[in-house]
Amino acid sequence: MKTINILEKFGKFTHQWHPHIIAELNGQQVKLARLSGSFMWHSHENEDELFMVIKGVLYMKYRDSEEVVREGELIVVPKGVEHYPYTKNDEEVWVLLFEPASTLHSGAIESERTINNQEWI
Amino acid sequence: MKTINILEKFGKFTHQWHPHIIAELNGQQVKLARLSGSFMWHSHENEDELFMVIKGVLYMKYRDSEEVVREGELIVVPKGVEHYPYTKNDEEVWVLLFEPASTLHSGAIESERTINNQEWI
Repeated sequence: MKTINILEKFGKFTHQWHPHIIAELNGQQVKLARLSGSFMWHSHENEDELFMVIKGVLYMKYRDSEEVVREGELIVVPKGVEHYPYTKNDEEVWVLLFEPASTLHSGAIESERTINNQEWI
Repeated sequence: MKTINILEKFGKFTHQWHPHIIAELNGQQVKLARLSGSFMWHSHENEDELFMVIKGVLYMKYRDSEEVVREGELIVVPKGVEHYPYTKNDEEVWVLLFEPASTLHSGAIESERTINNQEWI
């Protein structure tokens, strides 16, 4: 019920590719993440995932197309769709994620990048 | 799966207090609305509701407190909590809403302001 300032929350962590939770509603969570470089090809079996860009330019590669997402833009990746998010020139891109509380950020793929315990900030 | 530009979508309607849908995921919808003046006291029995301010300053009155939500900030109103959103000096405030697809914007209250058929833009 309290106001949440997105940029202030970004000031509370520095790790990249590590989503932090800022709000929860209807079984869904709002998370913030700093992305830089490339993640991995993955998909989420049961969850659609929303990315909103707060700072920088995010590139979202699909198997047969690619989207560019700039500040003030958002994109929804439907469940089951393989995607590969990346940034260019190692730019650090700030994104807001909206997804079910159950979502693992790397989908069915477990790697050194997988974070199982996402924290609130 | 396509990029959605929030400001471009705001350019597609002018009605105030009339949410327009721009995305859907996991049974939830992302909506945009132009708010000016005051709405009404209402609550949603089953749905939590998120307001993110894109432009202007939104005031959210609760029965025993009040929050100010500025550009780049968001607020979650839990289900069952009575709230009264308003703007000052008739400023038109642009908000992004995130809520279950089933949400009626005026909650259990039906009034001339109630919009039952929300459109996609």
